[in-house]
Amino acid sequence: MTRFMDVHHGMQGITAQQLKEGHDATAAIEQEEGVHFEHAWADPESGTVYCLSEGPSADAVRRVHERGGGGAPDEIHAVPLTV
Amino acid sequence: MTRFMDVHHGMQGITAQQLKEGHDATAAIEQEEGVHFEHAWADPESGTVYCLSEGPSADAVRRVHERGGGGAPDEIHAVPLTV
Repeated sequence: MTRFMDVHHGMQGITAQQLKEGHDATAAIEQEEGVHFEHAWADPESGTVYCLSEGPSADAVRRVHERGGGGAPDEIHAVPLTV
Repeated sequence: MTRFMDVHHGMQGITAQQLKEGHDATAAIEQEEGVHFEHAWADPESGTVYCLSEGPSADAVRRVHERGGGGAPDEIHAVPLTV
Protein backbone atom coordinates (compact mmCIF):
# COMPACT_ATOMS: atom_id res chain seq x y z
CA MET A 1 0.00 0.00 0.00
CA THR A 2 1.19 3.44 -0.88
CA ARG A 3 0.01 6.78 0.43
CA PHE A 4 -1.17 9.30 -2.14
CA MET A 5 -2.00 12.99 -2.13
CA ASP A 6 -4.27 14.10 -4.93
CA VAL A 7 -5.26 17.62 -5.84
CA HIS A 8 -8.41 18.97 -7.46
CA HIS A 9 -8.50 22.48 -8.92
CA GLY A 10 -11.48 24.56 -10.02
CA MET A 11 -13.62 23.78 -6.96
CA GLN A 12 -14.29 27.42 -6.08
CA GLY A 13 -17.14 27.81 -3.63
CA ILE A 14 -17.13 24.21 -2.43
CA THR A 15 -19.05 23.87 0.83
CA ALA A 16 -18.44 21.68 3.86
CA GLN A 17 -21.53 19.71 2.88
CA GLN A 18 -20.26 19.12 -0.66
CA LEU A 19 -16.87 18.03 0.65
CA LYS A 20 -18.55 15.58 3.02
CA GLU A 21 -20.81 14.25 0.26
CA GLY A 22 -17.79 13.67 -1.96
CA HIS A 23 -15.99 11.88 0.84
CA ASP A 24 -19.04 9.73 1.58
CA ALA A 25 -19.45 8.85 -2.11
CA THR A 26 -15.86 7.63 -2.40
CA ALA A 27 -16.06 5.87 0.98
CA ALA A 28 -19.01 3.86 -0.32
CA ILE A 29 -16.96 2.26 -3.09
CA GLU A 30 -13.30 2.62 -2.10
CA GLN A 31 -13.02 -0.91 -0.74
CA GLU A 32 -13.71 -2.34 -4.20
CA GLU A 33 -10.41 -0.80 -5.33
CA GLY A 34 -8.50 -1.47 -2.12
CA VAL A 35 -8.30 2.26 -1.47
CA HIS A 36 -8.97 4.22 1.70
CA PHE A 37 -9.43 7.97 1.73
CA GLU A 38 -8.13 9.21 5.06
CA HIS A 39 -8.70 12.95 4.91
CA ALA A 40 -9.57 15.80 2.59
CA TRP A 41 -8.95 19.53 2.95
CA ALA A 42 -10.58 22.24 0.87
CA ASP A 43 -9.92 25.90 0.11
CA PRO A 44 -13.18 27.26 -1.31
CA GLU A 45 -11.52 30.55 -2.27
CA SER A 46 -8.88 29.17 -4.63
CA GLY A 47 -10.99 26.09 -5.40
CA THR A 48 -8.33 23.62 -4.31
CA VAL A 49 -9.08 20.27 -2.67
CA TYR A 50 -6.38 17.94 -1.28
CA CYS A 51 -7.21 14.28 -0.63
CA LEU A 52 -4.96 11.92 1.32
CA SER A 53 -5.43 8.22 0.66
CA GLU A 54 -3.83 4.83 0.83
CA GLY A 55 -4.13 2.38 -2.00
CA PRO A 56 -2.41 -0.04 -4.35
CA SER A 57 -1.83 2.46 -7.18
CA ALA A 58 -2.51 5.98 -8.40
CA ASP A 59 -4.86 4.50 -10.99
CA ALA A 60 -6.94 2.84 -8.28
CA VAL A 61 -7.20 6.16 -6.42
CA ARG A 62 -8.20 7.89 -9.65
CA ARG A 63 -10.87 5.28 -10.43
CA VAL A 64 -12.48 5.69 -7.01
CA HIS A 65 -12.67 9.44 -7.57
CA GLU A 66 -14.16 9.02 -11.04
CA ARG A 67 -16.68 6.37 -10.01
CA GLY A 68 -17.59 8.28 -6.86
CA GLY A 69 -18.76 11.17 -8.99
CA GLY A 70 -16.29 13.72 -7.71
CA GLY A 71 -14.32 13.86 -10.93
CA ALA A 72 -10.72 12.82 -11.51
CA PRO A 73 -8.08 14.76 -9.62
CA ASP A 74 -5.84 17.12 -11.61
CA GLU A 75 -2.73 15.80 -9.87
CA ILE A 76 -1.94 12.67 -7.94
CA HIS A 77 1.35 12.00 -6.23
CA ALA A 78 2.63 9.06 -4.25
CA VAL A 79 3.87 10.48 -0.95
CA PRO A 80 5.97 7.68 0.53
CA LEU A 81 7.61 10.02 3.04
CA THR A 82 5.68 11.44 5.95
CA VAL A 83 6.41 13.17 9.20
CA MET B 1 -6.59 29.76 14.11
CA THR B 2 -6.82 28.62 10.54
CA ARG B 3 -5.58 25.43 8.96
CA PHE B 4 -3.23 25.77 5.99
CA MET B 5 -1.83 23.45 3.35
CA ASP B 6 1.37 24.63 1.75
CA VAL B 7 3.18 23.10 -1.17
CA HIS B 8 6.87 23.07 -2.07
CA HIS B 9 8.02 22.16 -5.56
CA GLY B 10 11.50 21.31 -6.81
CA MET B 11 12.35 18.97 -3.91
CA GLN B 12 13.32 16.03 -6.12
CA GLY B 13 15.25 13.38 -4.24
CA ILE B 14 14.23 14.55 -0.77
CA THR B 15 14.91 11.84 1.80
CA ALA B 16 13.00 10.82 4.92
CA GLN B 17 15.86 12.25 6.97
CA GLN B 18 15.71 15.61 5.19
CA LEU B 19 11.94 15.77 5.64
CA LYS B 20 12.33 15.06 9.34
CA GLU B 21 15.11 17.65 9.70
CA GLY B 22 12.92 20.26 8.02
CA HIS B 23 10.03 19.41 10.31
CA ASP B 24 12.27 19.57 13.39
CA ALA B 25 13.70 22.93 12.29
CA THR B 26 10.25 24.48 11.95
CA ALA B 27 9.04 22.81 15.15
CA ALA B 28 11.86 24.53 17.04
CA ILE B 29 10.58 28.01 16.19
CA GLU B 30 6.93 27.62 15.24
CA GLN B 31 5.63 28.67 18.66
CA GLU B 32 7.14 32.11 18.19
CA GLU B 33 4.70 32.67 15.35
CA GLY B 34 1.76 30.84 16.91
CA VAL B 35 2.00 28.17 14.23
CA HIS B 36 1.93 24.40 14.54
CA PHE B 37 2.97 22.09 11.73
CA GLU B 38 0.90 18.94 12.07
CA HIS B 39 2.11 16.77 9.22
CA ALA B 40 4.14 16.78 6.03
CA TRP B 41 4.08 14.42 3.08
CA ALA B 42 6.73 14.19 0.37
CA ASP B 43 6.99 12.77 -3.12
CA PRO B 44 10.72 12.54 -3.89
CA GLU B 45 10.03 11.65 -7.53
CA SER B 46 8.11 14.78 -8.51
CA GLY B 47 9.80 16.82 -5.79
CA THR B 48 6.56 17.87 -4.14
CA VAL B 49 6.15 18.41 -0.40
CA TYR B 50 2.81 19.13 1.29
CA CYS B 51 2.74 20.62 4.79
CA LEU B 52 -0.38 20.85 6.95
CA SER B 53 -0.35 23.45 9.68
CA GLU B 54 -2.47 25.59 11.93
CA GLY B 55 -1.69 29.22 12.50
CA PRO B 56 -2.94 32.79 12.64
CA SER B 57 -2.14 33.65 9.00
CA ALA B 58 -0.51 32.44 5.82
CA ASP B 59 2.27 34.97 6.40
CA ALA B 60 3.04 33.44 9.79
CA VAL B 61 3.25 29.97 8.22
CA ARG B 62 5.53 31.35 5.50
CA ARG B 63 7.80 33.05 8.03
CA VAL B 64 8.26 29.82 10.00
CA HIS B 65 9.26 28.04 6.80
CA GLU B 66 11.71 30.78 5.83
CA ARG B 67 13.26 31.11 9.27
CA GLY B 68 13.42 27.32 9.67
CA GLY B 69 15.69 27.15 6.66
CA GLY B 70 13.42 25.04 4.51
CA GLY B 71 12.64 27.85 2.11
CA ALA B 72 9.29 29.50 1.46
CA PRO B 73 6.55 27.31 0.04
CA ASP B 74 5.49 27.87 -3.57
CA GLU B 75 1.82 27.80 -2.64
CA ILE B 76 -0.06 28.25 0.57
CA HIS B 77 -3.80 27.83 0.93
CA ALA B 78 -6.11 28.23 3.86
CA VAL B 79 -8.11 24.98 4.05
CA PRO B 80 -11.01 25.81 6.36
CA LEU B 81 -12.96 22.72 5.26
CA THR B 82 -11.85 19.26 6.27
CA VAL B 83 -13.31 15.79 6.35
